[in-house]
Amino acid sequence: MKLGALGEDRLLNKILLHLPRGKDRKVPAGSADDCAIVEISGSKKYLVLKTDCVVEGVHFLRGTNPSDVGWKAMMRPLSDFAAASALPKFALITLIAPQQTNVAWVLGLYRGLRRAGSRFEVSIVGGETSNTPGPIAVSVTVIGFVEKSRVASRQGGKPGDDLFVTGRLGSASEKHLKFTPRIVESRWLTKHFSVHAMMDLSDGLGADLPRLARASKVGFDIELENLPVARGATIDNAISEGEDYELLFAISPRNRNSLQRQWRRKFPKLPLTRIGALNHKAHLANRKLPRGYVHFQQSR
Amino acid sequence: MKLGALGEDRLLNKILLHLPRGKDRKVPAGSADDCAIVEISGSKKYLVLKTDCVVEGVHFLRGTNPSDVGWKAMMRPLSDFAAASALPKFALITLIAPQQTNVAWVLGLYRGLRRAGSRFEVSIVGGETSNTPGPIAVSVTVIGFVEKSRVASRQGGKPGDDLFVTGRLGSASEKHLKFTPRIVESRWLTKHFSVHAMMDLSDGLGADLPRLARASKVGFDIELENLPVARGATIDNAISEGEDYELLFAISPRNRNSLQRQWRRKFPKLPLTRIGALNHKAHLANRKLPRGYVHFQQSR
Repeated sequence: MKLGALGEDRLLNKILLHLPRGKDRKVPAGSADDCAIVEISGSKKYLVLKTDCVVEGVHFLRGTNPSDVGWKAMMRPLSDFAAASALPKFALITLIAPQQTNVAWVLGLYRGLRRAGSRFEVSIVGGETSNTPGPIAVSVTVIGFVEKSRVASRQGGKPGDDLFVTGRLGSASEKHLKFTPRIVESRWLTKHFSVHAMMDLSDGLGADLPRLARASKVGFDIELENLPVARGATIDNAISEGEDYELLFAISPRNRNSLQRQWRRKFPKLPLTRIGALNHKAHLANRKLPRGYVHFQQSR
Repeated sequence: MKLGALGEDRLLNKILLHLPRGKDRKVPAGSADDCAIVEISGSKKYLVLKTDCVVEGVHFLRGTNPSDVGWKAMMRPLSDFAAASALPKFALITLIAPQQTNVAWVLGLYRGLRRAGSRFEVSIVGGETSNTPGPIAVSVTVIGFVEKSRVASRQGGKPGDDLFVTGRLGSASEKHLKFTPRIVESRWLTKHFSVHAMMDLSDGLGADLPRLARASKVGFDIELENLPVARGATIDNAISEGEDYELLFAISPRNRNSLQRQWRRKFPKLPLTRIGALNHKAHLANRKLPRGYVHFQQSR
């Protein structure tokens, strides 16, 4: 059987089921989550770890500005820190590139990596370069911390919770090289509210929401007419396109009014939209989704 | 200018010179060292970080047993933990592989990764898979800790220090897929002795020793006739071949006798050899090195 015949989720599951457990290992949120979150002895915080990569011809095209590639390579794992409400601190870079790569390209890449890291006070503390006969690949590992009382994950959503998303969905083709992870917003949320479940939308709402629901063991109802669709995008784009890197979270409806009021004051330029709710149903609730429905079904 | 025209050291320097410094960053041993070693607030230990990768066609050949590839991919960064005398705890895996890769191959790879990790109680806590049109690449990031009083680096060697290496050198072609990093030995050394400078030999003594000398701002004298040459290897192999993954360290000659006596008792099967000493000279001391000399020169 070939790798291409497995979805990414299923491959990861197959692999992760065999993971060893160290003697003193505690992983409050599992590896299938956005970040790995582990205990460190004698600390009130969890250690948060995430690795991600971008590959030429898959995540970016050959002629892309190298600084944009660096920005994206750093911001992707940082978006997973937003999902966990964690503070990133350090990054390690692995650059796999052919000998004939221009040094100017590499310097541009690192400019983008540094610029993105600086935005959240992340220090690039190490790295590795390797030759390859293939396309350029950039792997970024980010290490940070989160207070035990504030860690967020896909688990914990309750039936009846409101579902909110930040920003507008479906504009990935324009912004996938330019986005800013919602770390500031996520940290504010967990400081002022009890967020039951949270994730970042990297594969599109239609693929990601079912993952949150599955992890929380609940169903969901989406009010299609309320989806915050980006300018120039369709509802279908908003459901099916990945790389929005917005936050999706579940929170008690008791917090609805105060959340919306305080959000508008704190982040006046960034929409916050209630798109539906979690419910008791274990299967897909909203059958009116147009093409997105197929995507929903596939990803279950 | 192309990447191939720069040596790895020079490229890394060019890049690392531009690294940002976070506000609370403290990096006792710099990024040019084997591991990144950073302060974490409120801890008596340093956080130790290392990333490394293996690429098909560069670090392993197409037909290689995938479990051996996994072993090597995990053990390479662990060897850098040995160099720092640090204890590894967690690992993250990034697998970049084409769609047509056999799932059996991937499962074999993870078997090797897990087996290598278990050897040192390292838990694989997360990872990422990506498609690629190119060769398979496996990037492993290892996270761990070291007591501030026991951290080792390339810096700190003093003129007059004895230079020791563990094991035998020059047998890389046989053992590069099977080696065991010297973490146990390194931890024992820093527990019982004051090790002034240490590194692992991943690029060969001829390339690595000048790096230790440079970082310590000293010269060195090697007694060629004392080099512990592996069976079937030549002195030239012992100097020029990489991937021995043995320890090279500098220690006061006052410790020589007690080190050798205690080592023989503790590790009776693993040779420990005094190969020379550090000195005041800032340039290459041993001019009798045969072909290795060229290698020495190039790497300065």
